[in-house]
Amino acid sequence: MTTQTTGRPATGPQTENWHALAQQLRVDSIRSSTAAGSGHPTSSMSAADLMAVLMSKYLRYDFQDPQNSANDHLIFSKGHASPLLYAMYRAAGAVSLDEMLTFRKFGSRLQGHPTPLIPWVDVATGSLGQGLPIGVGVALAGKQLDKLPYHVWVLLGDSEMAEGSIWEAFDHAGHSALNNLIGILDMNRLGQRGETELGWNSGAYAARARAFGWHAIEIDGHDLAAIDAAYAEAEQQQDQPTLIVAKTMKGRGVSFLENKEGWHGKALDADQAKQAIQELGGETSIQVQVPKPDSQGAPPPRGDNAKVQLPTYKVGDKVATRKAYGDALAALAARPDVVALDAEVSNSTHAEEFKKVAPDRFFEMYIAEQQMVAAAVGMSVRHRVAFASTFAAFLSRAYDFIRMAAVSRANLRLCGSHAGVSIGEDGPSQMALEDLAMMRAIHGSTVLYPSDPNQTAQLVGAMADRPGISFMRSTREKTAVLYPPDEQFTIGGSRVVRQSDKDQVTVVAAGITLHEAIKACDTLQQEGIAVRLIDAYSVKPIDGQTLHAAAQATGGRMVVVEDHWPEGGLGGAVLEAFTDGPNTDGAPMNLRMRHLAVTDMPGSGTPQELMDAAGISASHIADAVRALIK
Amino acid sequence: MTTQTTGRPATGPQTENWHALAQQLRVDSIRSSTAAGSGHPTSSMSAADLMAVLMSKYLRYDFQDPQNSANDHLIFSKGHASPLLYAMYRAAGAVSLDEMLTFRKFGSRLQGHPTPLIPWVDVATGSLGQGLPIGVGVALAGKQLDKLPYHVWVLLGDSEMAEGSIWEAFDHAGHSALNNLIGILDMNRLGQRGETELGWNSGAYAARARAFGWHAIEIDGHDLAAIDAAYAEAEQQQDQPTLIVAKTMKGRGVSFLENKEGWHGKALDADQAKQAIQELGGETSIQVQVPKPDSQGAPPPRGDNAKVQLPTYKVGDKVATRKAYGDALAALAARPDVVALDAEVSNSTHAEEFKKVAPDRFFEMYIAEQQMVAAAVGMSVRHRVAFASTFAAFLSRAYDFIRMAAVSRANLRLCGSHAGVSIGEDGPSQMALEDLAMMRAIHGSTVLYPSDPNQTAQLVGAMADRPGISFMRSTREKTAVLYPPDEQFTIGGSRVVRQSDKDQVTVVAAGITLHEAIKACDTLQQEGIAVRLIDAYSVKPIDGQTLHAAAQATGGRMVVVEDHWPEGGLGGAVLEAFTDGPNTDGAPMNLRMRHLAVTDMPGSGTPQELMDAAGISASHIADAVRALIK
Repeated sequence: MTTQTTGRPATGPQTENWHALAQQLRVDSIRSSTAAGSGHPTSSMSAADLMAVLMSKYLRYDFQDPQNSANDHLIFSKGHASPLLYAMYRAAGAVSLDEMLTFRKFGSRLQGHPTPLIPWVDVATGSLGQGLPIGVGVALAGKQLDKLPYHVWVLLGDSEMAEGSIWEAFDHAGHSALNNLIGILDMNRLGQRGETELGWNSGAYAARARAFGWHAIEIDGHDLAAIDAAYAEAEQQQDQPTLIVAKTMKGRGVSFLENKEGWHGKALDADQAKQAIQELGGETSIQVQVPKPDSQGAPPPRGDNAKVQLPTYKVGDKVATRKAYGDALAALAARPDVVALDAEVSNSTHAEEFKKVAPDRFFEMYIAEQQMVAAAVGMSVRHRVAFASTFAAFLSRAYDFIRMAAVSRANLRLCGSHAGVSIGEDGPSQMALEDLAMMRAIHGSTVLYPSDPNQTAQLVGAMADRPGISFMRSTREKTAVLYPPDEQFTIGGSRVVRQSDKDQVTVVAAGITLHEAIKACDTLQQEGIAVRLIDAYSVKPIDGQTLHAAAQATGGRMVVVEDHWPEGGLGGAVLEAFTDGPNTDGAPMNLRMRHLAVTDMPGSGTPQELMDAAGISASHIADAVRALIK
Repeated sequence: MTTQTTGRPATGPQTENWHALAQQLRVDSIRSSTAAGSGHPTSSMSAADLMAVLMSKYLRYDFQDPQNSANDHLIFSKGHASPLLYAMYRAAGAVSLDEMLTFRKFGSRLQGHPTPLIPWVDVATGSLGQGLPIGVGVALAGKQLDKLPYHVWVLLGDSEMAEGSIWEAFDHAGHSALNNLIGILDMNRLGQRGETELGWNSGAYAARARAFGWHAIEIDGHDLAAIDAAYAEAEQQQDQPTLIVAKTMKGRGVSFLENKEGWHGKALDADQAKQAIQELGGETSIQVQVPKPDSQGAPPPRGDNAKVQLPTYKVGDKVATRKAYGDALAALAARPDVVALDAEVSNSTHAEEFKKVAPDRFFEMYIAEQQMVAAAVGMSVRHRVAFASTFAAFLSRAYDFIRMAAVSRANLRLCGSHAGVSIGEDGPSQMALEDLAMMRAIHGSTVLYPSDPNQTAQLVGAMADRPGISFMRSTREKTAVLYPPDEQFTIGGSRVVRQSDKDQVTVVAAGITLHEAIKACDTLQQEGIAVRLIDAYSVKPIDGQTLHAAAQATGGRMVVVEDHWPEGGLGGAVLEAFTDGPNTDGAPMNLRMRHLAVTDMPGSGTPQELMDAAGISASHIADAVRALIK
């Protein structure tokens, strides 16, 4: 069904040009993937008409100046259609034929799925269902932060419409009235292994989009005039995002590919390619003048920490580190580039402190952790310093998004509150006990677990300037302020809390367990046992030098105690610091390490009862030390 | 808006009884949470009328025989309404007043959020958005496996409707025409920190449900007759699941709580409780005869491996372990209790081999990994031996579900294919490089990474009988068959592939890197360097004894090589085996370990190019060995 519009109508010669371009995009998708011996030509061919019209008339993008703030954004949520995207780059004159034919080859920036190694790509895709929620983040930035008229165009595959994250995006975009967001659904009916759930039921997709507050248009995705009209209609929306449901055929234009099963993710061999290219009209070298934005957009604001007055706390007071996170975040609001997002728990994570002082830069993402992380990634595309928070346990909901954010080389700050059994009565569903392992295993990540509010505030400040993905684990319970406000804490450092010439055992703790370890040290001191106590607040990178020195000073006797499962957390970080590994300098390891961690599934109880039951409280630390020097 | 129905109409005395029961459920929600000093009384009170009618007339459940297959299932997707659930147990005579007042206390089974430590609870909830997708799994089992007329009732909160996983469930339930699934949306308008996204817009919820193929009914959730009619109407649906959108008030029935902000997750103090209970009519001890199912349902089928003929492979052939997974899964189809689920990549994971032989027990979950894992958990509730598969990278999408499945004590088998840089050209979005860390940090998990198809097949067989959550990492590439079919492999074991009296260095590898390590050993042998090579296919539990013996035999010199980020994977597992930790027996550690892992973000390329670039191929292993004996 074609929706008529009063917008710019397609003229005869225009559609002829578009058709020729679309055929070239198809031919080039075959050429690159056949040269590579792998890839997704047929998934590219279905969307070629849609992209030909878009790049010829609607997309406003200066390929010479990808950092122009006024540029539109084009996100291939169906990242496997990369041959089409790279064919568009060739047609735009941004990439040569020779480079296009390096597709999927070692060292080429034209990887199997798009990544921002390519200057015109905002974010990595390839894990389906992520492009649209990230597009929501870019569109939110456009409307509410940049206040620029750019559009965000997202090419969607139909298989990915089964991903819940897509509906988080529909929900949030509808709620936020993001009329600058346009989803183009390439409904080619065929998934990786057969028909999709909804096949060509374009009415079902449109009804769902409308139920989530979107404007929806159903078209034949190979009817160039209909495509033209749909884009014009979408651009005219004033208070709704638009979904264009385009009925297409996979492998369109080639007799033995069109609408045929068994061709997903398969390159044509040389003979097949030859025939297909012939059917499509042969190889061409059409160049398109992609429309540029009317003007240069104002650059995004820049900030630095010079004017930020981080909060301070008095030694001996009791303050939860989650509160210090919120206070520090609020202080960072003095930087115009800082934004905060939260998943409807801002009164628990204390991100609400930021909202109080900078409501325009606070984003309530409701209970949709995937959309929250995706929006933060989208805002980092627009150069915002984004902090996103929820309970640390619920960041596990967004793990694939965090993983992909690393592939995107995004700068992203996460804070997870309510870590470990020490949260108490709420029970295990709310306790993060795997977050340190999960976040350490993110490429290039920074993992912080402060024990003190002054330390927390300084580290939040440092996160603002930290590239890559950084994660702070905060504690629910109020704990004593240990360090004076003027003490300096840096990422990668540690703090030796107790030491003497006679230290017999090293204890490594962080966050809540540091407070237990201090109690244990006091007890042991009365018994004449000297302990070197290390506050390993920087779990990644960890301070290997201090650990090595401590191990040497204490005969290799070491106790590591953490409110986390035994696998991959602080204990793992300490151990890895003693290997001759990729992240370390190769000291031989001569350790006798006792590792205290949570091994049984906890239940409800007071924080102290649960730490006692888990064997990570002061008395267990003292016992472990005693056992090592027996 | 009340929908009229021709079903059993409510009579006067009936509604009076229901009202009295609902008031008691409210009073008891206050009593238990006030005794605990924490909890969610107001979120319980909003749904009390809904639950009073349900348990009095519609829920068919034998509290004396929770294993009766004919029982209905009731899942509190809003797990924080646990005071209401426990109040229902008291009213049903299943729990005493005394026990109810142990709510949230250390050692009580009545935890802050429900878990299956309680015999009438199917699955743990408390991470929002999980109850409905798990309910879809139970309902699928009811319709397609058990073929029993039980209903699955899911109480939903309105805040959790923002979670994408909820819409994966709506999508899948609608697609599968699960008329035995009834969602009850307690639309009380108020979330944790203010109004929900949609507030009391019940039309929006209903429209969304309908767009996903559900029957939707909008009611006043405090109108007992309307509730009665809605349940009757829902039970009459023949080919659609039903969502009942019930407009309710948080804190219903108490002047200072009803529809008031600031009362989420807050217990009343003693004085407040006294006044509230007075307003509600005082403490009562009504007992309800919950209707029992008409008859005993047939028990679920049981299977064992005795009749399973696992596939075998000839030494020297080249077979991908992912293919062996599929073959072994197909062999397990001989057991009537085995089911398989896949996220639209069954031709890649090879789960399609199962589909070929047991199509009735194969579930296509489309690209919805959260729903896939949730459905597997739901089927484990119905005692099926569920295997779920997708690319290992995309299991990260379902991490919160896997985490919660451990809290649920579910038995669940996961297989993730396409691990590591060795997948080649598709690039980093498709490469699992954090899966071993992620899965090791799941409570009670088993983590397997076989290198050989005969080994794979045996381990798949072992997974079928393994309690808890087990994960197999399979390899995309074809690799040589190393072990004869008659060799035995068990979970927790390892295989010493090379050894001699003169071994100078131990090399630990698994999966794809074992094949590289074998090449390295061959090279080193020619140089006169003897290596002890260990195939650590059981990453968790790891074979500490064999590792300790090897370390001792080779002077503590050890190389660990893995196709994974450096953090928390095989290297971490090996290191932890040398600590005196909760999972180990306390050998002192005297190691010089070199750890080869993936440190830079990979791109596209051939598997060999990418393994070379990552420094985990044969030549790097050989270099690492040489460096250790210099």
